[in-house]
Parts: sequence; structure tokens; C-alpha cells
Amino acid sequence: MASKVHKAVPHLMTLADLTEPWLLPHGALAKKHASKLKLPSQSLFNKTIALLFSKRSTRTRLAAETSATLLGGRALFLGRDDIQLGRAFIGGMCQGIFARVGEHSEIEVSPRSPTYVNSRATRPFPVLNALSSLWHPTQILADLLTLHEHAYLFEENGSCGPLTVAYVGDAANVLHDMLVTYPRLGHKLRIASPPQYRAPAEVWRRVEELGCDKDIWWGEDPKEAVMGADVVVTDTWISMGQEAEKAERLKAFEGYQVTEELCRLGGANPNWKFMHCLPRKPHEVDDEVFYGPRSLVFPEADNRKWTIMALFDNLFGRWTH
Amino acid sequence: MASKVHKAVPHLMTLADLTEPWLLPHGALAKKHASKLKLPSQSLFNKTIALLFSKRSTRTRLAAETSATLLGGRALFLGRDDIQLGRAFIGGMCQGIFARVGEHSEIEVSPRSPTYVNSRATRPFPVLNALSSLWHPTQILADLLTLHEHAYLFEENGSCGPLTVAYVGDAANVLHDMLVTYPRLGHKLRIASPPQYRAPAEVWRRVEELGCDKDIWWGEDPKEAVMGADVVVTDTWISMGQEAEKAERLKAFEGYQVTEELCRLGGANPNWKFMHCLPRKPHEVDDEVFYGPRSLVFPEADNRKWTIMALFDNLFGRWTH
Amino acid sequence: MASKVHKAVPHLMTLADLTEPWLLPHGALAKKHASKLKLPSQSLFNKTIALLFSKRSTRTRLAAETSATLLGGRALFLGRDDIQLGRAFIGGMCQGIFARVGEHSEIEVSPRSPTYVNSRATRPFPVLNALSSLWHPTQILADLLTLHEHAYLFEENGSCGPLTVAYVGDAANVLHDMLVTYPRLGHKLRIASPPQYRAPAEVWRRVEELGCDKDIWWGEDPKEAVMGADVVVTDTWISMGQEAEKAERLKAFEGYQVTEELCRLGGANPNWKFMHCLPRKPHEVDDEVFYGPRSLVFPEADNRKWTIMALFDNLFGRWTH
Repeated sequence: MASKVHKAVPHLMTLADLTEPWLLPHGALAKKHASKLKLPSQSLFNKTIALLFSKRSTRTRLAAETSATLLGGRALFLGRDDIQLGRAFIGGMCQGIFARVGEHSEIEVSPRSPTYVNSRATRPFPVLNALSSLWHPTQILADLLTLHEHAYLFEENGSCGPLTVAYVGDAANVLHDMLVTYPRLGHKLRIASPPQYRAPAEVWRRVEELGCDKDIWWGEDPKEAVMGADVVVTDTWISMGQEAEKAERLKAFEGYQVTEELCRLGGANPNWKFMHCLPRKPHEVDDEVFYGPRSLVFPEADNRKWTIMALFDNLFGRWTH
Repeated sequence: MASKVHKAVPHLMTLADLTEPWLLPHGALAKKHASKLKLPSQSLFNKTIALLFSKRSTRTRLAAETSATLLGGRALFLGRDDIQLGRAFIGGMCQGIFARVGEHSEIEVSPRSPTYVNSRATRPFPVLNALSSLWHPTQILADLLTLHEHAYLFEENGSCGPLTVAYVGDAANVLHDMLVTYPRLGHKLRIASPPQYRAPAEVWRRVEELGCDKDIWWGEDPKEAVMGADVVVTDTWISMGQEAEKAERLKAFEGYQVTEELCRLGGANPNWKFMHCLPRKPHEVDDEVFYGPRSLVFPEADNRKWTIMALFDNLFGRWTH
Repeated sequence: MASKVHKAVPHLMTLADLTEPWLLPHGALAKKHASKLKLPSQSLFNKTIALLFSKRSTRTRLAAETSATLLGGRALFLGRDDIQLGRAFIGGMCQGIFARVGEHSEIEVSPRSPTYVNSRATRPFPVLNALSSLWHPTQILADLLTLHEHAYLFEENGSCGPLTVAYVGDAANVLHDMLVTYPRLGHKLRIASPPQYRAPAEVWRRVEELGCDKDIWWGEDPKEAVMGADVVVTDTWISMGQEAEKAERLKAFEGYQVTEELCRLGGANPNWKFMHCLPRKPHEVDDEVFYGPRSLVFPEADNRKWTIMALFDNLFGRWTH
């Protein structure tokens, strides 16, 4: 789980960082989960985790705060103003940092970054990415747990795999972490996005390094993408900070709304399910799907807490200087 | 202690919700208190209570934060901005919600309210009213504890009851919870308020349901109200949000200031005591009474903490999904 | 450690308040440290410390928050707005107050100050000064710990004392607590400040009361001040709130920048070290010194946490009503 910079410190920037025994083909992962998730331990007893949220999210904050309490520790929420003032010294005083940022460069672990080295200049400590412009690892872990919990819904495949997962929408952080994870678990990815919205080179490089590019179909037609899909996923078309591009983006994503009709015409598995990381706008998915029996969005949201807690326990709680 | 909506979940919107064995005539209550209040337990160990304060109060916040710590848990303060963002998911992640709101409808427990149901859509959890436009149950519990602690002051009645309690002022949340509680404990209520400021129909309905209307005298003359009073209570004439009505209200409450003279002319018990939930404005009660030996306002304020802690312990700490 | 007002309550406004056995000549202090600092104890278990920061500091806040967690307790951060609303009742609900203020009068312990007496009107509790216009005791404790940890650097003196400590700059809170402490530990102080910036009468009175004025040289020439110095210390020339005097102050402090040249010309110990409480501006000390091997500023910053934790443990954790 170590990044390249600090080998001994268990950072997690993207699920691309996860290797065995953390990420195994579906059967093994399910078994691992069953044996690993004996929570809550008290591994954060007397310890403080800094929540550096330059981008706010009450839901993620609550998941982190309540998780830290369950593990016997304390989460310390610091908003944009606090971070500006205290960058240089936050790390050295805490057991770990859970950072939700805009640009991924804000969070990237580097010996030169004053936020992430302590006042003795070189003492490193774990950083967990709570969301950045490039990656969103905790979301995809919650999605995977949700699929495992609902494996019984995918009868035709038997115990949750391999699945065909369609992503219809903007190529952003949620999709990026799907790209480096789902193929390694044996699932097939089928993606539709407008040609101008594709994964940046640095993401695609990680995809290729992990050999994940072989099982990915990527086109422009949503109908083609959902062909044979067991699961259909989408996300916001207009991320925070892209409000100025709103009109342009709404036009580019015409026809991308996830509906019963789209999936019927495209030939999805009649039993297809729907996931979305929330908050949702109706243009991305209509009410019939979002609130209907295909929707896994509420257990998916609930699982944010349990996967964040598992990461806090394993990354922050089981690590010492 | 269950509301009508979620029978198994111990909400508390108003003391009207409290029934035996929680609320008993004065003698039994005193004995119950003595045996029940063995604090602190560690019933909130590893648990988080969300403080949803759309209406701020540093004193109530501190009482809640320090109480949660004493019970081994964690209070998580969320102000108006945080609540707006996170309504839909706060409940499911916490052990309970302590909510201080403007309109009572903001807090009313309902399966349709997204704040108070979790992401699995129907998992309920306890909500404790920290103040709303209609009710203020934690204040009246603190008042009752204060009266019990000072029972020795009411010698003529012997061990704190039955008392005659006068309320002189605006018919607002503090009075509403007195109406549904004091008569059930055997105390007499005598109230003076301008005719245009009376309890709304939904409050009066609860008063009648509980048979509390029989022991209440309600008029317009403060002097008449304090006749025989052992305790005189008032509250602000201008609640948060009513600032525009200030001139009109000051005029309506002319003659309502609690003073030695008022109580002498009205024929209060010569040994009468004074209570006020704070913060206080001098037009409501003069300095002689407020700072004098009749005033119980400081122990009353102190008791906010202990009664909030008792509710946290009993509502939140002893309940599981 | 008791102030004059509340003899039984262990306030700490300045290190002038510290007497034996807390402050002993250097050898004994070092030995005391070794035996006393067995941390973390769980002395704040179930207890809440209020952090009243009318003047913000993320670093000090983090040191306090993580220290309270390490001691088993909870720090409750309250900013300027919260304090205004809640002054009257904060104290009585907490185990202690760690206050960072502008004017020292905001924090001075007094039976008349509503912040620091509780609602029962006379129940006192400990107050620890996190910084005020007059004093900065936690900084000087961190400085002393840093010097002890680096005693091996001062070989010519042997085990850290007695040292010659030069202060070149503005006579403000950091210097004030040096004045009442270093001479009592056997160290010599040599100070250069412009004549208009000298310690106020109330500080000098404490210096004289403690007999500290005998070992202090105070002039205007920075070169003269650093003569024989083992340690050179400076601080900001423009404290928060003095921004309007910026041009005037920059002019008054011309020639006060700490540099290799200044110390060579002034005849400092060739092995001199540098301390600064941060944040630093380059006009006070140049990059060569600040980032070079003479600089102790990063371990000094790190020690803020450990000394704050020791004070929380001893002042707040070992005291009961």
C-alpha cells in the first residue's frame, strides 16, 4: 500500500496503489472481506486524524468523524481557511491525513510538500485521498462492497462475478478509479463519454501499467455502452469548479441520461442495477431509475462509512513511526 | 418515550411525550431521580451524536459537547451551512440527533423527512429537541431538577410540592412544555400573557389530551397571576426571528416586568423564587430580583448540562438498531 | 502554580507564576523533566478542555487538540464568534480553558470576569494562557525543552548551561516570558531593541519581583547583544494588530536582521544556534540562518505539542473541584 515516495508509509492516492493481498479477483476478495472487516477495533485510541477538506462534503465528513470515534480516536475537521494557515505543521502532529481537495496536485505526497512532512522536516505519515480531481478511491471501494452485498441480485452470474459494468457520462475521478480496479477483479468495463471528455494521460498510464486496458470498451454511444450491462453507473456531468462550462457540458451529454428506455434499447441485462455516488441531478438519471428497485444508491452511500472506517483502521490505525 | 411515528425509537420532541415511569408526581419523581442519575455511564462509548443547530447557542452546545464526552462519546457540531449540505445522510451515521431549530416543522420526526431517515431509507434513530418554536423540553427538565434541588427553600410546602408556579410573559416554547408537565406533577400553573399571545392550537391539543388544562389559570393581569406563587418564571418577550415585532411587543408587555413590587402587590408567597432560562433582558425582570437571593437562574443554567446528559444517556446511549 | 486570585486553582498566565519544584536551575530541571514526562497519562478521560481562540492559530490549535486526545480527553475549539455568545458559561462546564487572546486583560483571571467563573457564580477552574499581548508561557517552555534536547550542541558549556541567550528584536510576549524565566535558570540574557520598544511596567515589575533583572543586559545595538551568544532568538517585528505601524516598525528595526555576518561581527559563540517561534518573515532572519544547520526552529515548533500536553496533564488533568 506504500507509495513510491515514502515506502514505509501507507498512503493511498488511488486504488491503483492497492496490490495483493488487498485486491484479489472477486471470489478471494469476498472471502478476504469477510475475515478482515472485524470492526470496530480500537486502533485509533488516543490518536487524531486530520480531515483536510479544501472541498467540503458533509456526508464524507460525517463518515470520517463517526468512523474515527468508532475506532476509539478523533477526527479533526479543518476547512479551507484552517488549512491555508496551518499547512506546514498539520502532518507531524497527527496519525494520518484524510484529504479532500480540488486539484490532485494539492494532495500528492512529496517530500517537498510542507503539508505532508512534519516540523522535523522528514517524518512522513499516511495520507488517504478523500477525493481529488484525478481519483476517488474510497468511492470505488464502497461500490465494490455494495456489489458484493448484492451479489444475490446477479443470479445469472453467481456470487457477483464477473460482471459487465457500464459507465455512461463524464470521464472523471470516479471512472478513473474504476479503470484501475474493475478489470483487475475480472469485471468488464464498457464506457460511453463524449470524445472531448476522456481520461488524462497520467490516469491512462496507470491503467496500462496495471494491464487494465485490455478489458475496457470505450465509445461515444450510451446505448452501445450498456450492451449486456449488469450494472450501469454514472456521475455528475459538471464537477465542482466546472460551473462555467455548464451549457457546453449539458449539450455534450445530450442522450446520456440513464433511463429504462436507454438500457432496453441498448440491450442491458434485463436485471441491470444502478449506482451513483451522489449528489445526483435528474438530467443524469431519471426518477424512475434513481428511486426505483434497480437503484443501489442508498446502500452505496451507506457503505461510504464502512469502507472509510476500514481504511482508517488499516492505513492509519496499524501504522507507527 | 416513543413518538407516534417510530414506536421503537426513543425520540423526545416535548415533555408531553414523557409518560410513566419517567414522569411521576413529585415525591416519586424525586426518588426516581436519586436512583436513576448515576452518571456518568459510558453508554456513548464509540458513538457520535450529531448536534444540528440551525439556531446557534454556545451554552447549549457546550452542555451537549461536554455531556457526550462524559458519557464516553463524541458530539459533532454542525451549523446551518453543514446541515443544508448534509441533511439526507446525517441520521444514518450517528447514534442520535440533538437538534436546535427555528420552526418546529424542521425537527418533526417523519418517515418523509430526509434528515431523519438514513440512506437505507427507513432506518430510524432518536431525535432530541434542543429547542424549537413550539417546545423546549430540556429547559423544563432543568427547571424541575432545580426546584427539586432547592426543595428546602419551600418549607411551607415540604419537600417541593405541590407548588404554585406563575408564568408572566410571552406564551412560547418554555411555557408550552410547562403546560404539559407541571400539572401532571401536581403543581398549579398561573399564567399572565397579553391576549394576542396564547399557546397555538397544536400545543393546547396536547395539554388537553394529557388532562393538564384543569389546573391552569390563564389571564392578562400579571398581579393576578403571581397570587400565592412559590415560583415566578418568565422568558424573553422577543424570540429570535421576532425582532421586527419589537416595538409592538414591548408595548404589549408593559407592566409584565417581574419585580419585588409586582409580587408584593399580587400577593405572592413572601418566600417566592425566580427562574429564567437566559439570556435575560432587564425589561423582563429587574436587577434586584435577577441578581438577588430569590434568583435560581444560575443553578438553573448549570442544570441544563446535567439534564441534557441524562437524556443523552437514556435516549441515545441505551438504544440500538 | 496558583495565581493570586484563586489559590487552589492552577492557572498559568506567565512562567513568572511557576515556582519550585516546577522551575529549577538547569541541571535539576533536566532531571525533573526526565522523571515527570511519562506521557500520555489518561488524566483527561471524560473531560473537555475549551480552546478559546479569539486570535486564531491552526498550529497551536492542532497541538492542543491532539494533546487532549492523547490524554484521553476532548478539546473543544471555540472561535471569536462562539466566545462572544457564550462567555458567561463556558468555564463551569469544562475542566479548563486554554485561551489565546489579543489584549492580556481578556484572559486575566478575576472573580468578576464572567468567562472564567461558572454559573454558580464562584466556582473557579484553571486557565492556561495560549498567548496574550503580554505573555507567551507555552512558547518559552517549548524553547527550554528544545535547548535541553540539543544540549549536546553546546559542548563548551557542558549539558546545556549556563548559556548566553541573545534576543534581537521587538520586546513582546515571547521576550517577556524569557525575562522571567531564563535568569532563574542561570542563563544570561542579552537584548537589543529600539528604545521605544521596551517591556511595559507591569512586565518589568514581575521581572524585578523574581530578581531576574540582575542578569539582563539591554541595549540598542544588535551586534553588542549577540556578543558571546550561544543562542540567538528573535520574533516578529509586527504582531497581529500592529499592521498600521508596519512602515514605522520596519524603519525602527533596520539592522536587526539575524544573519551570519551580524553574529560574526558581534562576536557570538562560533557555534551559535537560532530559535524563532514562527511564523517567520525574511526581514527578521535571512534564509541562510533560518534554513541552515544553526536553526532549531523545526524541533522548537514540534515541542509546542509536547509542552502543551504536559501542561494539560498537570494543570487540567490533575485538578478537581
